[in-house]
Amino acid sequence: MLYLVRMDVNIPHDLPAEQAQEIKAREKAYSQDLQRDGRWKHIWRVAGEYANYSVFDVESNDELHGLLQALPLFPYMKISVTPLAQHPSAIAQN
Amino acid sequence: MLYLVRMDVNIPHDLPAEQAQEIKAREKAYSQDLQRDGRWKHIWRVAGEYANYSVFDVESNDELHGLLQALPLFPYMKISVTPLAQHPSAIAQN
Amino acid sequence: MLYLVRMDVNIPHDLPAEQAQEIKAREKAYSQDLQRDGRWKHIWRVAGEYANYSVFDVESNDELHGLLQALPLFPYMKISVTPLAQHPSAIAQN
Amino acid sequence: MLYLVRMDVNIPHDLPAEQAQEIKAREKAYSQDLQRDGRWKHIWRVAGEYANYSVFDVESNDELHGLLQALPLFPYMKISVTPLAQHPSAIAQN
Amino acid sequence: MLYLVRMDVNIPHDLPAEQAQEIKAREKAYSQDLQRDGRWKHIWRVAGEYANYSVFDVESNDELHGLLQALPLFPYMKISVTPLAQHPSAIAQN
Amino acid sequence: MLYLVRMDVNIPHDLPAEQAQEIKAREKAYSQDLQRDGRWKHIWRVAGEYANYSVFDVESNDELHGLLQALPLFPYMKISVTPLAQHPSAIAQN
Amino acid sequence: MLYLVRMDVNIPHDLPAEQAQEIKAREKAYSQDLQRDGRWKHIWRVAGEYANYSVFDVESNDELHGLLQALPLFPYMKISVTPLAQHPSAIAQN
Amino acid sequence: MLYLVRMDVNIPHDLPAEQAQEIKAREKAYSQDLQRDGRWKHIWRVAGEYANYSVFDVESNDELHGLLQALPLFPYMKISVTPLAQHPSAIAQN
Amino acid sequence: MLYLVRMDVNIPHDLPAEQAQEIKAREKAYSQDLQRDGRWKHIWRVAGEYANYSVFDVESNDELHGLLQALPLFPYMKISVTPLAQHPSAIAQN
Amino acid sequence: MLYLVRMDVNIPHDLPAEQAQEIKAREKAYSQDLQRDGRWKHIWRVAGEYANYSVFDVESNDELHGLLQALPLFPYMKISVTPLAQHPSAIAQN
Repeated sequence: MLYLVRMDVNIPHDLPAEQAQEIKAREKAYSQDLQRDGRWKHIWRVAGEYANYSVFDVESNDELHGLLQALPLFPYMKISVTPLAQHPSAIAQN
Repeated sequence: MLYLVRMDVNIPHDLPAEQAQEIKAREKAYSQDLQRDGRWKHIWRVAGEYANYSVFDVESNDELHGLLQALPLFPYMKISVTPLAQHPSAIAQN
Repeated sequence: MLYLVRMDVNIPHDLPAEQAQEIKAREKAYSQDLQRDGRWKHIWRVAGEYANYSVFDVESNDELHGLLQALPLFPYMKISVTPLAQHPSAIAQN
Repeated sequence: MLYLVRMDVNIPHDLPAEQAQEIKAREKAYSQDLQRDGRWKHIWRVAGEYANYSVFDVESNDELHGLLQALPLFPYMKISVTPLAQHPSAIAQN
Repeated sequence: MLYLVRMDVNIPHDLPAEQAQEIKAREKAYSQDLQRDGRWKHIWRVAGEYANYSVFDVESNDELHGLLQALPLFPYMKISVTPLAQHPSAIAQN
Repeated sequence: MLYLVRMDVNIPHDLPAEQAQEIKAREKAYSQDLQRDGRWKHIWRVAGEYANYSVFDVESNDELHGLLQALPLFPYMKISVTPLAQHPSAIAQN
Repeated sequence: MLYLVRMDVNIPHDLPAEQAQEIKAREKAYSQDLQRDGRWKHIWRVAGEYANYSVFDVESNDELHGLLQALPLFPYMKISVTPLAQHPSAIAQN
Repeated sequence: MLYLVRMDVNIPHDLPAEQAQEIKAREKAYSQDLQRDGRWKHIWRVAGEYANYSVFDVESNDELHGLLQALPLFPYMKISVTPLAQHPSAIAQN
Repeated sequence: MLYLVRMDVNIPHDLPAEQAQEIKAREKAYSQDLQRDGRWKHIWRVAGEYANYSVFDVESNDELHGLLQALPLFPYMKISVTPLAQHPSAIAQN
Repeated sequence: MLYLVRMDVNIPHDLPAEQAQEIKAREKAYSQDLQRDGRWKHIWRVAGEYANYSVFDVESNDELHGLLQALPLFPYMKISVTPLAQHPSAIAQN
């Protein structure tokens, strides 16, 4: 089951740079783990912004929320979720 | 090169039903042609709305605009385009 | 799996009254069928508005979309969907 | 009498972690007390966000405000309230 | 129990003038009846707009909704409701 | 002459608690003085929010601004003013 | 007493041209009468839009509303009013 | 002197197609005349939308407004104007 | 050439009071100099807000920007500019 | 391929002035390098705001994002990107 997720990152400028780097490194590793196991299906950079659009493929709203709130950058992101359904004109299955 | 596109359809209620059906049939055929040739990479229904999120894979802004303005439903849609770039955490290439 | 859904109804004033009544009667019957089978779990009127907030309990985004687009009033409604997850402070299961 | 309430939590990043934890623990206990006595009828997590939608069942606007402003997280939340009425298609009483 | 209600009137320009006049006459009579019985406590014109801010004093959300949806102009108005509570600095009781 | 005024209070979390208390005490005294002399005609709490809707009865825009900018909480509030006129359906004079 | 007023004109495209011309002619005459008697102190075109910003100098909210609702174009305009006060840095009196 | 102008076109679907074509032909000729004489310096299509961003080079706000309100599509467009100034980092003069 | 300018002042609460006073004193002197030489034609307080609407009379967008960015409060203000043109119904020249 | 980019700068008031100056100096040098090599085609100041509208001429969304995220002021800017296509009425090629 697919969800489109937009994440806008806003790291406070007074967060120590070292701490920010450490959080971002964990974020990247976490994201790549989920991409490899197939649940974080797509991740694209929004051109010009510190933001991404992603597509998640999970079993339920609960699973999605669990994955998102475990993001190391979660406290510094504005996230919005759009549930996606099969489009009648799509030639592929979601 | 990828673009996220959101399309919200709003067919006026006084458009004759037959005409609306004919336009939608052409829209579907057109969309499936572009999906088959790889340029309309994804199309998902926004759950609960007469709207879709799509991903297009084209060579340029001009090619994207050409495809979108040729949509049979173009006069009845509100469209917004977000250019996408490679995300540094993505394990796949755009 | 729960979803909060807001529906704002906007029937064009030049729709014949008889036709509007017929659509609303079908809407009511359809809604009550879904309430009885447990998928349309709650429906509340927004005080002062021709709108409702509802909670649906379905298996998937696709099932939700299928139910919503089959609403007789669907062409005359603005619908927005919020996927809900289990809250860690809730004493009940969703 | 029912009210839909949306709460968006925004804890300043420079609030000491210990203090934040203590507030959250009190919030949870307070919420569960009100759930048990029936006034906080539903609480759902908004998928992907540090936010909830809740339904309260109270006697008056004053009772609702009293409950909300006593929330330990009240100073760190944006709250919006929607008064709900009986929907004519509902098969259950509010 | 008090509610602040804002009503914005938007009568379609192709509604026959006679019909519009008849609706407005009924609206005025209805409003004055409710003012006299004390439930429509205040009504003020928003300067420069075809809109009003009103205060209603009723027993419940349901009673409020019943009064509002019975307004002859209801199909032509955008209404928003704000539930009011006793302010701790007020020297009068709501 | 009446004005509807909405005030949203937002006290920075790093303002010392003692200072905040002292400001709020002065705000309350000031508000009650103006209520007693008839110029702050109504004050209602917006249910669930640290905000109020008030009605002022003053001679001019200048008098209104003078009263509002003298509020002890003025630097911590977002204020919006709506000038009110006599409504043709009102049975009372403003 | 001064008010800043913005008016956005939106004449329905199916209003007969002759009728529109007649309304606009009356609007112009009415506006110039009020400019001559000093109550419509300024009127400026918003560059690129069918809209104006105006300043009115009247005795009260009621007088302002009376003038505005008598505008021949009133049914076809969106109007917003901002009450103005004396600025402490102004070298002129309002 | 430069201005950025965004124009969103919205032709009513019940405008006769022939009339729409005639207006668009005049719009194109008018635009190209102004481009040739240097006052309509740039015109770009917003990808995916029936809209453009343009840059005008004129002597004054009045000249700009005169050019824009003479557009054959003016009654069917939403226009917004942003006045531009010389940027201190620009290597070219506006 | 006229421009309507809205300025919303937002001085951070942790700016030392003395520094804030000094900036405001310079702002006032600067504003009055420009009022006296005729370029800052009007300045009005927005009733109830720490904001003003002003009208500037300058030769160009560049001159306007130069004046505004030199405001001592410029770093603490949100400014929006609306270019004004001669209104066809105005009895005075801009 | 052209993109319209709007950048709004917001430097925190507690960033040391020296550091801010150094960032701005690097920003200016960087911008002028890109203007000289033709990729930053236009840069205009938004009159009255600490903001610019720019036009970039690059090969792809990725190239655009690379240029923008390397801006020294990137962490302190809100950026929005609009992809531009050839306009059918333009007499010049993009």
